[in-house]
Amino acid sequence: MTATVDQQRAGRALLTYVAEPGDPVLAAWLETTSPADAVAAISAGRPPMLRQRGHRNLGGPHAGKVEHAFGLWRQRLGDLPAQLDLDGFRRKGIRLVCPGDSEWPTQLDTLGVARPYALWLRGEADLRYCCLQSVSVVGARASSAYGDHVGTEMAAALGERGWTVVSGGAYGIDGCAHRGALAADGVTIAVLACGVDHPYPLGHQDLLASVAAQGVLVSEWPPGRTPTRLRFLIRNRVIGALTRGTVVVEAGLRSGALNTARHARDLGRPVMAVPGPVTSEVSAGCHKIIREWGAVCVTDAHDVLELLTPLGEVPAYGSAAGRASRFPATGPARAIRPLPPRDELAPASRSVLDAIPARGAGPAVIAVGAGLDVNTVVSALGLLAAGGFVERCSRGWRIRRSP
Amino acid sequence: MTATVDQQRAGRALLTYVAEPGDPVLAAWLETTSPADAVAAISAGRPPMLRQRGHRNLGGPHAGKVEHAFGLWRQRLGDLPAQLDLDGFRRKGIRLVCPGDSEWPTQLDTLGVARPYALWLRGEADLRYCCLQSVSVVGARASSAYGDHVGTEMAAALGERGWTVVSGGAYGIDGCAHRGALAADGVTIAVLACGVDHPYPLGHQDLLASVAAQGVLVSEWPPGRTPTRLRFLIRNRVIGALTRGTVVVEAGLRSGALNTARHARDLGRPVMAVPGPVTSEVSAGCHKIIREWGAVCVTDAHDVLELLTPLGEVPAYGSAAGRASRFPATGPARAIRPLPPRDELAPASRSVLDAIPARGAGPAVIAVGAGLDVNTVVSALGLLAAGGFVERCSRGWRIRRSP
Repeated sequence: MTATVDQQRAGRALLTYVAEPGDPVLAAWLETTSPADAVAAISAGRPPMLRQRGHRNLGGPHAGKVEHAFGLWRQRLGDLPAQLDLDGFRRKGIRLVCPGDSEWPTQLDTLGVARPYALWLRGEADLRYCCLQSVSVVGARASSAYGDHVGTEMAAALGERGWTVVSGGAYGIDGCAHRGALAADGVTIAVLACGVDHPYPLGHQDLLASVAAQGVLVSEWPPGRTPTRLRFLIRNRVIGALTRGTVVVEAGLRSGALNTARHARDLGRPVMAVPGPVTSEVSAGCHKIIREWGAVCVTDAHDVLELLTPLGEVPAYGSAAGRASRFPATGPARAIRPLPPRDELAPASRSVLDAIPARGAGPAVIAVGAGLDVNTVVSALGLLAAGGFVERCSRGWRIRRSP
Repeated sequence: MTATVDQQRAGRALLTYVAEPGDPVLAAWLETTSPADAVAAISAGRPPMLRQRGHRNLGGPHAGKVEHAFGLWRQRLGDLPAQLDLDGFRRKGIRLVCPGDSEWPTQLDTLGVARPYALWLRGEADLRYCCLQSVSVVGARASSAYGDHVGTEMAAALGERGWTVVSGGAYGIDGCAHRGALAADGVTIAVLACGVDHPYPLGHQDLLASVAAQGVLVSEWPPGRTPTRLRFLIRNRVIGALTRGTVVVEAGLRSGALNTARHARDLGRPVMAVPGPVTSEVSAGCHKIIREWGAVCVTDAHDVLELLTPLGEVPAYGSAAGRASRFPATGPARAIRPLPPRDELAPASRSVLDAIPARGAGPAVIAVGAGLDVNTVVSALGLLAAGGFVERCSRGWRIRRSP
């Protein structure tokens, strides 16, 4: 018996409750078992039969480890209702995004077996689309006034140029990164180490609400889950993997921001660091990774985009400003041309056009509104963009504004 | 007729008067003509017969260029006395050092045709010996308080560890580099773009006197010559070539310090830069060369020496402190052993030992005092060092102090 798509989604949702992200035993099991079947087996008390990989330790889980993990999963699953009320979450503004969904950011697949089972989201932005042109801006919680200034300015400049700023929602540099992007009316994403309904840190309750309103909150952990030190470190790989590059604004030698940078580096993403006074301890980690890892020394958003947008490349999903010039000082010069008559549009394109909300939306949201499947909507959006009816925005697509 | 060694030295001295350093016409001529013969030809009005190198411009001087240069040389030579009073200069504390002399720093030969014709020196230190373990510390004239602090501290730490600090004698970072080295009782060298008797800038008259007392002033230009903007730039290649590496402490985007760094880079010497606030214009050049040239980001003397002293290498001519440990926090632990009886020394070794002044001196000075040739003195010093009678010091060699 093969599980339905809905059953697989429910299975993934349950896995986020019963196992920690990156659990190597579960990862090994999921190589041969579907999420729904794994959950059914846990429920029935049938532990995974994992092949021992040869004599030497090749990374395959030991029998003892399997037993321990399985006991934990079974216990946690027992505490849950038989069926998760995903619709109830949706009414509270919380949605589940699974691999294969149109909002799933496929760059997370580069994490391999450490890929999240699923992501819990809260907020207005379309995660996949707004990550196409995104950069992580991270740093010390105990930042200096200098770091706060530089981090805020950089995030604002990135937001102004249509780049999504991803950070971890923490005090210090993370907070400045979100605030700078918000101030520039840009999109920003907070990747949390707790449930997206859990305001942590508490002092960032309002900030996280603003991020949800103008961007999106993301977590591998289900609603209600609280953060731990280990979860922050596990979470960092998602920040590194979501974005085209990671900027460390300030970091002490033992800062968690260096952990995020290490994940980005290991994934082959550009790592950048902002220098600061050598007399400042919170710049020591930045100088260390510039010297020892070859992290690129960046001083402003221009330096960052120069690295992330290779010479001659026009960002595929750039804003109108991004298309007009790599670093436009002012608004773009748009070619003014008459739109083709709306009546000549195909019925599907007209439905799509009517379903696009004023603030813009991703294809998945538009598809629901238009009553069409996502593939049809994506095709229609391409034609509408070519015709000048719609344009890319940070949330996905919006009706093109008058020039 | 072959010119004597003294005639060649006199020829080189005169060339420093008549031609600018790095003059490509003179460089081409000196490939086939000795300095003395060149001066004799200028005096007699016989311009050089330089072969045109093929049809295309392969760097060989044009006839017009030759004529122009020769006219200038001839005019300047005419203004000079027939014979330079080198002994008179020596009585004023100014000495001439030529290629082949024992005090000539042979690393300058890597400059090829741009090698100085000769160097004018004023000061106590032995140029060749104190440059064996030397580093350039350069930067902006209009430095910030931050740069002054970092430059001074770094130079002091380098001086304490027995490294000679080379700089350009200018206001700002250069001055801090000299002052820091002097404060740590280290040796420092100012490479000037004017005569070594010419205190420039005037506000550094006392500082340059201190450099001469505890180190040495160096110039390619003869006594009495004044600096020009072009001469500063020509001078910079000597700073880069003299030392094992160059550190830029602060530099604006158009700073002359970047010119020095470029020379060092082109000679294959390590180039380092100190980061600073990205909000500071005088750190912009440092960040630029870190990002664009791959200059190494250094935050203190430890970082500098880590780069210049590869792991496991013990500096060949290091101070006693340098031999005991790479970065000794305190004085070295010296093995105490009885000296062999002085009476058992060979006569030459005894003469050398007697000729070493209390403050120490280079082999050339000792040779004069001992009435021996330099090669004999160098051999004797090696034996005396092995026997524990003498030790290296910043000026060359000194009687070993009691442990």
